Amino acid sequence: MFETKPEISQDIETLERHRVFGGQVSFVRHQSAAVGGAMTFSIFVPDGEGPFPVLYWLSGLTCTANNFTEKAGAFRRASQRGLIIVAPDTSPRGANLPDDPAADLGQGAGFYVDATQGPWKAQFQMETYITHDLIAAVEAHFPADPGRRSVSGHSMGGHGALTLALNHPHLYRAVSAFAPIACPVRSPWGIKALTAYLGADHTAWEHYSAATLIAEGTVKAFDDILIDQGRADPYIDSHLMPGLLEHAASASGQKLSLRYHDGFDHSYYFVQSFIDDHIDFHAERLAPSRT
Amino acid sequence: MFETKPEISQDIETLERHRVFGGQVSFVRHQSAAVGGAMTFSIFVPDGEGPFPVLYWLSGLTCTANNFTEKAGAFRRASQRGLIIVAPDTSPRGANLPDDPAADLGQGAGFYVDATQGPWKAQFQMETYITHDLIAAVEAHFPADPGRRSVSGHSMGGHGALTLALNHPHLYRAVSAFAPIACPVRSPWGIKALTAYLGADHTAWEHYSAATLIAEGTVKAFDDILIDQGRADPYIDSHLMPGLLEHAASASGQKLSLRYHDGFDHSYYFVQSFIDDHIDFHAERLAPSRT
Repeated sequence: MFETKPEISQDIETLERHRVFGGQVSFVRHQSAAVGGAMTFSIFVPDGEGPFPVLYWLSGLTCTANNFTEKAGAFRRASQRGLIIVAPDTSPRGANLPDDPAADLGQGAGFYVDATQGPWKAQFQMETYITHDLIAAVEAHFPADPGRRSVSGHSMGGHGALTLALNHPHLYRAVSAFAPIACPVRSPWGIKALTAYLGADHTAWEHYSAATLIAEGTVKAFDDILIDQGRADPYIDSHLMPGLLEHAASASGQKLSLRYHDGFDHSYYFVQSFIDDHIDFHAERLAPSRT
Repeated sequence: MFETKPEISQDIETLERHRVFGGQVSFVRHQSAAVGGAMTFSIFVPDGEGPFPVLYWLSGLTCTANNFTEKAGAFRRASQRGLIIVAPDTSPRGANLPDDPAADLGQGAGFYVDATQGPWKAQFQMETYITHDLIAAVEAHFPADPGRRSVSGHSMGGHGALTLALNHPHLYRAVSAFAPIACPVRSPWGIKALTAYLGADHTAWEHYSAATLIAEGTVKAFDDILIDQGRADPYIDSHLMPGLLEHAASASGQKLSLRYHDGFDHSYYFVQSFIDDHIDFHAERLAPSRT
């Protein structure tokens, strides 16, 4: 059911490593063929021999590998559940790479798509990076079980988690999201980024719309999709539109557990408040008995 | 037994506020007479009417109000225990204030002392700030119980927590620390800072040495002092010297629970791994039944 282990392409370089709860968190750099250069990710590995299931976490606009790693408070529960968590950077980086002065395009804003346009197409290949090169590096160098992967994320990374899981259901056994961009085709953030990365023709965009993918319902690989959304999130109506996910799920029969939380905003204070539930959600679906 | 509530001196300005777990965390700015200008602190307040006990957290070199607030993962447990946590900045700040290019002196490095020397003495009055102006602001504007305060901190802030508690036992009902500077008189960090802030005469320094204060043992206001220290902390022998606290406690009969942890370093990954134990330690000693 799951892909075979990708090839080892390059070695990795450990930038820092810290003991935390019952495990170790490292920041590592490796070469990615997809993006034609170095990428950085953090990885928490619980104590023990493994192999462990792996939760991939995709972060939002402006984030690096650090934001989730430092602010989500995830490693207590990951230790308890015996889960590896990988948090990659949100785009390729470098002074020689294209960028945009705004926070919603270019470096720190890869949107988890494979760009086909303009200066972006040479290296902004984040879909291939996340679904191939990152997995290859993790499974080559860490005690990760290739049969037990899942994906979650926040905001732009929630969009990434949903679209990558729905487009690559053979890679991931479970998916969840915090405050995802449900339909980038209707979000100003998404319209700007997808126009730049994919061009003006919207037919190419549908591949990257979680609401569209769920509504099409051609793939129901997931028994449930857990989404948390703060009601005090300033982007809820303008950019995120979680109601579109509910409508899409109703249309296709995909089970979706969308939870609204009064008072919570778009920050990592929101994410940390519910991360344990997501770790439990993934750990249950990644249990060895389900292999 | 405890000080009366300090006067309200000024209003506070809320810079940001977020819901997190079962409470709210705010960053606020207020005017401090002690430092002659604005200071910033974060405050987590659990849901409910209070009044709640208050744990003051003092951060280490280079830190602002943000480090603990964003990285310590403390608010889950603080919600459960019904504890306010206040995390102030580590010095006055501003382009018009004196500073030092190094990380261990000046802005971000107040050492929780009242400076008497040179350009520092006008505003680097952090002992008075923490023990008076900060408490006054918190108790005037938040549902804080003036009879139930305690203090903890990390590194320079661990030194601050221990020395302020031992010098002002009427203010704090409990004290703990992570990787504190046990004896600044023997630490290169401490020697540099105390020389600048207090002058070359070491007699003025003893007031700010936790090991000295514990060894003197004139005050045994605390039934126990909890200290956590990582064995992989790169500063353990050169700057922190936790063994001096053990010797001092043995000499005076002060109970000290010093726990060493294999593999843990000096980072907030270490702090977050044991913060729940410290919150429990303080919550037990701040319980209303002990009033």
